[in-house]
Amino acid sequence: MSQTNKVYLTNLGYKLGNLFPIYELNELHERSEDELLETLLEAGLEKYAKSDLSTFDMARESIQSTLKNAQIANHKIDAIIYTTSSFWNPSFSSTNEINRLINECNLENAYPIGLFFSECGNTQIAIRVASSLIKTREFKNILVVATDKVAYNQTRIVPPDISICSDAAASCILSSEIEEGFELIHTTQYMNTAMADIDPNQLEQIEQYLNIAMSGIQQTIHQAMQNTMKTSSDFRQLIMNNYNLSVTQTVCKLGNFEYDQVFKNNIPRFAHAFACDTLINLSDFLNSNQINVGDLILLLGTGSSTWGANVICKV
Amino acid sequence: MSQTNKVYLTNLGYKLGNLFPIYELNELHERSEDELLETLLEAGLEKYAKSDLSTFDMARESIQSTLKNAQIANHKIDAIIYTTSSFWNPSFSSTNEINRLINECNLENAYPIGLFFSECGNTQIAIRVASSLIKTREFKNILVVATDKVAYNQTRIVPPDISICSDAAASCILSSEIEEGFELIHTTQYMNTAMADIDPNQLEQIEQYLNIAMSGIQQTIHQAMQNTMKTSSDFRQLIMNNYNLSVTQTVCKLGNFEYDQVFKNNIPRFAHAFACDTLINLSDFLNSNQINVGDLILLLGTGSSTWGANVICKV
Repeated sequence: MSQTNKVYLTNLGYKLGNLFPIYELNELHERSEDELLETLLEAGLEKYAKSDLSTFDMARESIQSTLKNAQIANHKIDAIIYTTSSFWNPSFSSTNEINRLINECNLENAYPIGLFFSECGNTQIAIRVASSLIKTREFKNILVVATDKVAYNQTRIVPPDISICSDAAASCILSSEIEEGFELIHTTQYMNTAMADIDPNQLEQIEQYLNIAMSGIQQTIHQAMQNTMKTSSDFRQLIMNNYNLSVTQTVCKLGNFEYDQVFKNNIPRFAHAFACDTLINLSDFLNSNQINVGDLILLLGTGSSTWGANVICKV
Repeated sequence: MSQTNKVYLTNLGYKLGNLFPIYELNELHERSEDELLETLLEAGLEKYAKSDLSTFDMARESIQSTLKNAQIANHKIDAIIYTTSSFWNPSFSSTNEINRLINECNLENAYPIGLFFSECGNTQIAIRVASSLIKTREFKNILVVATDKVAYNQTRIVPPDISICSDAAASCILSSEIEEGFELIHTTQYMNTAMADIDPNQLEQIEQYLNIAMSGIQQTIHQAMQNTMKTSSDFRQLIMNNYNLSVTQTVCKLGNFEYDQVFKNNIPRFAHAFACDTLINLSDFLNSNQINVGDLILLLGTGSSTWGANVICKV
């Protein structure tokens, strides 16, 4: 069997929760003298997103916006990769919710594949799995949706006190048939299981946590560059998760990117939306910028112990 | 890029909970006159498996037995696909447990990919995803582990009153490098989201549930045969989930298999171990039967609304 089919990433969509100023978050006032609030505001955060919808309902709205302008009929979507870290939701114990989601989106031929363990890098591994399944002709058009939500009794503070979590879903289509958007050139992943024994909420472990995280990010970018024989200057844009401006600056240094190569507008707009960040940022970047055929973009997703990067090229 | 690499399924391993007679299950005596217990005993069930280990701990023991006789070093396993439906376990909210599992198994290069939504057919989609990732050379050696356990407050009765759930983990390696065991020829999946609105525990909906389930199984076997241009008589063995002898008989009729083409020894031994059944049955079949090069086996996994089948060939 020969394998020459290209895989395209197209039809970005997303659903964000309602936006509120982060200073309205009670838990940020529980620390002495609002120190954490001040730090986060100084680091560029302003608002976060909170949704009353379930992860499945947010996913549905995102998928509907992805499908609205898709160049293929819904019934041609033959798989849906649903990726999440929000397993606090008891509805995961049955398949009723995913079946309803598929029905409500009229995706009657989309076989459901749930994916997890890469946290805020879930989108990157979902894109890699979708691409493989398409290249081996197991499926032709795969809808990828990331959806995550903070449980009512969970903290929104991202350890170690670096950002605020937002509720959102984001989606796209990976396809060998829709030849538009971006060609997926490469994906790489990296992991460091030493994180298992480190608690970023313990003051004395923060430095070790940050060192491993930085080294993971650096290694992931390095692998992406080496495997595609590119350097950071070959890229039109680095699209990464929204933590805060200081984290973004650090990642630029680690990957040898210029600070203005990164899309940062969404850091004040909604802070950190789990694995949805990168697709939302890509969508918003495209809506506000001219992009040329051949432009390269690095989609970087950073979990706590796993990191991933997709290299995509505008077609 | 050409794609001629074959994918092999090898090194089966499993960990079963401790075995108890099903008549010791209190919930089976809560029905009038032990009617359900009688029915299940008549349908060939005798014992079930209960484990005090967590899903991660069962997975570790299964993985260790898979790795014990593997023809490659642990560090060559470059991904682990961990598939489960047991999301009642709160440890899924972090990656600590999977990182510890990877460390304890000395799989320092195994990138973790969590997979769900196919329930008792999770193993079949995990094998398909692993195979695609190997064929596209994203990874070379992928450890697949299925692990599931009934929560202390959940029922062990499989709706609609057809079997008893057992706690277990089962694993194997999918590889382009270890040329032994079985070659993976094909995988097919099928789904029917109409199940979303059917409750098999409601007496008046059981018939509709069973009709959809039977039609899903029939369609899945049909696709597997059509895509590989085989008929049931070409297969040495059908390996399926353990529900009960009557279900097995029905599946044989639906797929045009002879009753003695199915491995049934584990139905009385431990009843239904979620997605682990098929790998455990395959392992036990191989331990008690001579198998020849070229023998075909159909691994059939049947969830409630998704069904999957792997066609494998002895090398």
